[in-house]
Amino acid sequence: MTYIVKRKGKQVRPMFVFLSAKLFAPINDSTYRAASLVELLHTATLVHDDVVDDSDERRGFFSVNALWKNKIAVLVGDYLLSKGLLLSVKNKDFHLLEIVSESVEAMSEGELLQIEKTRNLNLSEEIYYDIIRKKTASLIASCCAIGAASAGANAEQIEQMRLFGEKIGIAFQMKDDLLDYGDSDIGKPTGIDLKEKKLTLPIIYTINNADSNTRAYIINSIKNHNTDKKRIAEVINYVNQHNGINYTRKAMEQYKNDALQILENRSE
Amino acid sequence: MTYIVKRKGKQVRPMFVFLSAKLFAPINDSTYRAASLVELLHTATLVHDDVVDDSDERRGFFSVNALWKNKIAVLVGDYLLSKGLLLSVKNKDFHLLEIVSESVEAMSEGELLQIEKTRNLNLSEEIYYDIIRKKTASLIASCCAIGAASAGANAEQIEQMRLFGEKIGIAFQMKDDLLDYGDSDIGKPTGIDLKEKKLTLPIIYTINNADSNTRAYIINSIKNHNTDKKRIAEVINYVNQHNGINYTRKAMEQYKNDALQILENRSE
Repeated sequence: MTYIVKRKGKQVRPMFVFLSAKLFAPINDSTYRAASLVELLHTATLVHDDVVDDSDERRGFFSVNALWKNKIAVLVGDYLLSKGLLLSVKNKDFHLLEIVSESVEAMSEGELLQIEKTRNLNLSEEIYYDIIRKKTASLIASCCAIGAASAGANAEQIEQMRLFGEKIGIAFQMKDDLLDYGDSDIGKPTGIDLKEKKLTLPIIYTINNADSNTRAYIINSIKNHNTDKKRIAEVINYVNQHNGINYTRKAMEQYKNDALQILENRSE
Repeated sequence: MTYIVKRKGKQVRPMFVFLSAKLFAPINDSTYRAASLVELLHTATLVHDDVVDDSDERRGFFSVNALWKNKIAVLVGDYLLSKGLLLSVKNKDFHLLEIVSESVEAMSEGELLQIEKTRNLNLSEEIYYDIIRKKTASLIASCCAIGAASAGANAEQIEQMRLFGEKIGIAFQMKDDLLDYGDSDIGKPTGIDLKEKKLTLPIIYTINNADSNTRAYIINSIKNHNTDKKRIAEVINYVNQHNGINYTRKAMEQYKNDALQILENRSE
């Protein structure tokens, strides 16, 4: 536990809780508990994700499973999850719990959906959005909603903040997916998603809009040559040429603008 | 999910919920939800336990990890856990949730404690009871308490049922541990616990009460020869000769009698 707590991440989710609360009233004790709850839930899913993906690294350090094996990592994840829920239950923050528990279910659903759909390498845009909405955006939506709720916002305001969080959460995941294709000033494309046969919007758009030969070549590259660096670099080039990056960037901007619009027009 | 639901177990925990409820009033909808909650939580921990122990079998069939790998098993466990909690949250069974959430935390704590303490093969009776109280008895205690609570029992009655469940849950686990040493009419000793270097009361008592040579021999057998069938059979014989079985059986009977006593003397 000390090891995990010391290697904290960007704490984006608690930040969403605090900022959402501050839109309505000063931060109070239940805001702090709400922020702790979401960070505990998020950390629990990261610890389990590293077991699921067999990753040795997390936040620049060894993952829990790398240091203490899967056995401990599964149980530590369970412990963090129950610790978070217990914090809310003990303090009778039942309203926060109602909002958050939906996203706890959605997160494991999203991961399972991703695994199932990845297997056949045949993903529509609709399923892509369904996956990232469940896997990433649902918890960020909950963060914004419980932040507002902790500061005494009314039902309409809470729902607006939830929707804001969902839109910004989708944009957040799309940006993350774009970074894998090198859409940033900070580095080269990593291609990690492709190596793991994980299809995101840039490649989905490209596959769905390429001629049948190119499509077959790309799918074959990901299916059978996913560890071949040259072949993966080639696919990333294809994606660029076929407008996959630009298309995704535009769609992401749209979600971001929708989110900001909701924030501007929110009820006082 | 269909695979898991079809291969159901003895459903002992929901049975504790129903029987505890019936002591106070007829079974109602919230009793059914309470029973579903504990079976979902229990199933979630079994799915994770099989990942943790790398087991290929569960209830006479293949385990989830054996069929779909650890990846799916971790997520399916998370999904079952959140599904159970969500069922309570959605129906605003907050009182049941308060009772159960303590045992969710205790269960992962108990498993972690067992792994930690097993490593050095130096277990006191006190730690043994601490482990089985957390790992097994805490959920059964919650089952009896929420059964009673769902049927409108008062705070004193709920606490009595919780205590009954804790005592009977400890006896239940001790009986399970005894079966590993062949304490039954139904079969030979399996010695599975010893093969996994899992120390339970029969061997703990034997180690703590044997002369230093015997103690060293037993510990060396478990530590370095745990896959040697002859050596394990020898240890089981030692445990019998040194009264480890009888001692455990007596202690278990005491817990069972204490439990029944609580039930008889409960407040009307």
